[in-house]
Amino acid sequence: MKLKVLVVAGDGIGPEVTGEAVRVLRTVAELGGYDFEFREALIGGVAIKQHGLPLPSSTLDAALESDAVLLGAVGGNEFNSLPPDRRPEAGLLQLRQSLGGYANLRPSFAWPALASNSPLKAEVVDGADILFVRELLGGLYFGEPRSWDREAGSAWNTMRYTRDEVIRVARVAFELAGARRKKVTSVDKANVLEVSQLWRATVTELASQYPDITLEHQYVDACAMHLMNTPRNFDVVLTENLFGDILSDEAAVITGSLGMLPSATLGGTVNLYEPVHGSAPDIAGKGLANPLGAILTAAMVLRHSAKLEQDAQAVETAVRKVLEQGYRTADLARGQSKMGVTTQEMGKHVHQAL
Amino acid sequence: MKLKVLVVAGDGIGPEVTGEAVRVLRTVAELGGYDFEFREALIGGVAIKQHGLPLPSSTLDAALESDAVLLGAVGGNEFNSLPPDRRPEAGLLQLRQSLGGYANLRPSFAWPALASNSPLKAEVVDGADILFVRELLGGLYFGEPRSWDREAGSAWNTMRYTRDEVIRVARVAFELAGARRKKVTSVDKANVLEVSQLWRATVTELASQYPDITLEHQYVDACAMHLMNTPRNFDVVLTENLFGDILSDEAAVITGSLGMLPSATLGGTVNLYEPVHGSAPDIAGKGLANPLGAILTAAMVLRHSAKLEQDAQAVETAVRKVLEQGYRTADLARGQSKMGVTTQEMGKHVHQAL
Ligand SMILES: CC(C)[C@H](C(=O)O)[C@@H](O)C(=O)O
Ligand SMILES: CC(C)[C@H](C(=O)O)[C@@H](O)C(=O)O
Repeated sequence: MKLKVLVVAGDGIGPEVTGEAVRVLRTVAELGGYDFEFREALIGGVAIKQHGLPLPSSTLDAALESDAVLLGAVGGNEFNSLPPDRRPEAGLLQLRQSLGGYANLRPSFAWPALASNSPLKAEVVDGADILFVRELLGGLYFGEPRSWDREAGSAWNTMRYTRDEVIRVARVAFELAGARRKKVTSVDKANVLEVSQLWRATVTELASQYPDITLEHQYVDACAMHLMNTPRNFDVVLTENLFGDILSDEAAVITGSLGMLPSATLGGTVNLYEPVHGSAPDIAGKGLANPLGAILTAAMVLRHSAKLEQDAQAVETAVRKVLEQGYRTADLARGQSKMGVTTQEMGKHVHQAL
Repeated sequence: MKLKVLVVAGDGIGPEVTGEAVRVLRTVAELGGYDFEFREALIGGVAIKQHGLPLPSSTLDAALESDAVLLGAVGGNEFNSLPPDRRPEAGLLQLRQSLGGYANLRPSFAWPALASNSPLKAEVVDGADILFVRELLGGLYFGEPRSWDREAGSAWNTMRYTRDEVIRVARVAFELAGARRKKVTSVDKANVLEVSQLWRATVTELASQYPDITLEHQYVDACAMHLMNTPRNFDVVLTENLFGDILSDEAAVITGSLGMLPSATLGGTVNLYEPVHGSAPDIAGKGLANPLGAILTAAMVLRHSAKLEQDAQAVETAVRKVLEQGYRTADLARGQSKMGVTTQEMGKHVHQAL
């Protein structure tokens, strides 16, 4: 087994957390006798500072030559006044677009050891296990026309989808549901938006090819509520780009911390892996960041790019163990008398549990 | 005091809940010696059935001649396959647009008697008191161009805002915050969307006119999470139409039930009042609906249209009392051994508490 991984650590806590994720991948490679090769490249704010661009072409070339791209996080307060197309986030969006992955998988899982960390009651989150399939290349993120006309004092973005874009991502959702609890909840705003009507009609049509899957539709406003009231009622949640952005962050409260959430983006030339959390500039470089989101993202690299399902599960089990042993980074320590650890210590404990 | 109220009960549970709200308003008028006049008109699915249109011109005329419009809810499953512009919801959107109110106020309040109803832990919601100011006439709801081209298999909507649209709604938020805890959280997606950059720049600029108000900005994805983790950190939440739709429904879990939430839309020719919940066709006509959202909406009619602040508070106090007495409609009864009541009984208890 040979795998070339490009690590684009990015800004803020990105380098710290991807550092621990890479350490875990190296351990897995050693134990399994696999040949994993790691290269590094710049993205986001650090790339702007060194190259004037959030996605230098050297980074993109290296990404396209790799088997998997592992990203940390991008963004920093100093760039807040720049227009969207010159910000660190633009580098991430360009990378997503260039790699071509359209199905962003975001599992949100109630780790038993973290039940008391959630603002939700334990009896509400117990056993919740949701997989968001967020469309990642369409909608308001990429729709044209888009502009801010400062003189006219007016700005606009376009939420656009084609039938083919909906079919390809819906197919991923149905197929993943088939290996899970066989239910897809498709989320839209079809009572108001034409683009959602296309979405709903297309998903409904495709569902006939998956007779063993139960398809249900929810409006995005209702879904935002149901996710909190009855998280166990969800299996796979399929939705467009921005709705997926909002709902998957919201669902982080099921897990107890955004710092726990991994993601994988499939369907393109090269798969892209990124923890769901942001660059958190306020805590960067202090050893306060939770590396488990990045480490669980590494597990997704093993599952989806290396096709090493057993090793992926071994990493997930190691994470469960360190949580059960009581190790907690700052974001997880809320009101608990547990063993506080730094980013690096948490990484080391996972490494040992492996 | 003279007040002409047009009641557009609409579909599903609309007639039941507005019935109780009107009963409460009649009681207030009687007790205070006010002259409230009620007229009724059709909107939504019932209007489509009788007139072929979700907002007949007779309804619109009556609305424009009134001092306040009290709406129940619109929508029904039988209309789900119609395009957006021919659905019951189109009647509501046309009414909103014609009345011209752009500032939709949605309070989300943790009623102490309902603390155990929330999926959130009591210590998380205790004391939470959020006022959403949702822009109601812009964004994806009304932006042009919009279309679903079935032949090309492509659809699009436009999220558009002008500076003036942002200023007028932001002003409402700053002014309301001045009479509350003096904090405005403005929610956008300025790291990706140009329209959000206009939003953020405009709100920031306007804030200089309100030096005693603290302005904070959050991205909509982060906000969806923070609302659940730390609801007490919010005072006034200012946001655009669709983000407000999603976040205010999500924040219903703070209250324990969507059935508790009122709303008022200000700034236009005639103020529009509607509970936040939908038409809930599955429980319509069964006495299962919670009328308290509509009754609290009636309190907002008293506050904002009749300028009867004391009477508005009397209604809110009456609602608090019946909740403390233990009366619960089905949506509020979750796992509690409380006194279950029907829609009408709940209305009667509020009436008596007045
Ligand atoms: C950083 C930002 C552009 C990004 C997004 O909105 O997609 C982030 O919020 C995410 O969810 O991955
Ligand atoms: C019924 C629907 C059009 C409406 C909206 O999206 O505004 C509703 O969800 C609301 O929040 O009032």
